[in-house]
Amino acid sequence: MIFRQLFEKVSSTYTYLIADEVTGEALLIDPVLEETDMYLRLLNELGLTLKVAMDTHTHADHITALGKLREQTGCLSLMGAQAQSACASGQFEDQQIIKIGQLQIKALHTPGHTDDSYSFVLEHQDQTYLFTGDTLLIRGTGRTDFQNGNADDQFNSLFNVLLQLPDNTWVYPGHDYKGWMVSTLHEEKQHNPRLQVSNAMEYRQIMDNLNLANPKMMDVAVPANRACGEVSL
Amino acid sequence: MIFRQLFEKVSSTYTYLIADEVTGEALLIDPVLEETDMYLRLLNELGLTLKVAMDTHTHADHITALGKLREQTGCLSLMGAQAQSACASGQFEDQQIIKIGQLQIKALHTPGHTDDSYSFVLEHQDQTYLFTGDTLLIRGTGRTDFQNGNADDQFNSLFNVLLQLPDNTWVYPGHDYKGWMVSTLHEEKQHNPRLQVSNAMEYRQIMDNLNLANPKMMDVAVPANRACGEVSL
Repeated sequence: MIFRQLFEKVSSTYTYLIADEVTGEALLIDPVLEETDMYLRLLNELGLTLKVAMDTHTHADHITALGKLREQTGCLSLMGAQAQSACASGQFEDQQIIKIGQLQIKALHTPGHTDDSYSFVLEHQDQTYLFTGDTLLIRGTGRTDFQNGNADDQFNSLFNVLLQLPDNTWVYPGHDYKGWMVSTLHEEKQHNPRLQVSNAMEYRQIMDNLNLANPKMMDVAVPANRACGEVSL
Repeated sequence: MIFRQLFEKVSSTYTYLIADEVTGEALLIDPVLEETDMYLRLLNELGLTLKVAMDTHTHADHITALGKLREQTGCLSLMGAQAQSACASGQFEDQQIIKIGQLQIKALHTPGHTDDSYSFVLEHQDQTYLFTGDTLLIRGTGRTDFQNGNADDQFNSLFNVLLQLPDNTWVYPGHDYKGWMVSTLHEEKQHNPRLQVSNAMEYRQIMDNLNLANPKMMDVAVPANRACGEVSL
């Protein structure tokens, strides 16, 4: 397996490249529009063919590269079935397997940050890799106050879905604003302040009192991302 | 082994945390002053004791956390023997082994970017990890036009020292400005434009014609770093 984590500085977004070393087939999770040329350069230098680009959810803080990557490489562009995306070339649902060569990535529907939020699980050489989008962040969780977000759903997604995976699972989030790149479920269970609750009501109380401003790019990014990155200004 | 790569956004600096999981002893490579509290938080949350903080070289683009970390944790602060650092609590030389629990990190003197530039090599579970500072960057190399930099020395450090390590060695640089976090020596041999030369003269020609401006922080950072991060403004 070839695995690379990539960082887009403006929105502090992590993008993940996963590829089967044998077949040369590759997948990108949460690619950012402005970085498209860098992805194409890296894919080319590593001798990889992009088969799938997919988003964990409809982002409000950056514009997806899904449309541009599909246009330039002919890859599939996938989003969750709940996304109101008219232009993705395919959808995934809960428990669906996405195959990249011999690698299997399982989609888990983890609503809460948005109703179309998914996490992705990959097992490789006795290690579980979990790509959590904005559902579970390192020492945080994604906000639940817009885009059909719901704190009760997120509590369920966190405690009854993600935290059921093995403790040594690598947690690869959709963002980090403090420069941390990876964590484990064990570490998050112990030190993530949002996970130190005993029921959904306690969790909702935390989330209801965050008083966050809307993301700066929300009014541009959400409509653009529903159109797979086609920006009309 | 516990291993974490951390990112400081302002100067695009990578800091590396390496620890022996059994003894809980930890090492930081190239810590940044402003991030000190984050390092202490992470060390504390992971249950680690900082034994050593060390710099690959005297940085010109950010201020080191070596002094502050030593003050707050009692760790050793190490720099290369060539650094004009009156305050480091110890020095390393070429081929010197730095021990952290059962882990052994070997210092390689790789002058060129500065005369006090070192790279660090760690072997763990059949994998070589190479921390290259500003000597070898992903698809680039550190400039050689100040702080006793020397393109001929850097050519020698790259081709006769670093590129002699196994092809599948992970390259962990001191910076990356495009959001790439790791590479391999194989990949750099093939795709790093600065390594597509056949002798030191060709390399020097490239480096002599870069026409770069001085780093913005140079006048503050270099004296401060010679004093282990004590800033006098």
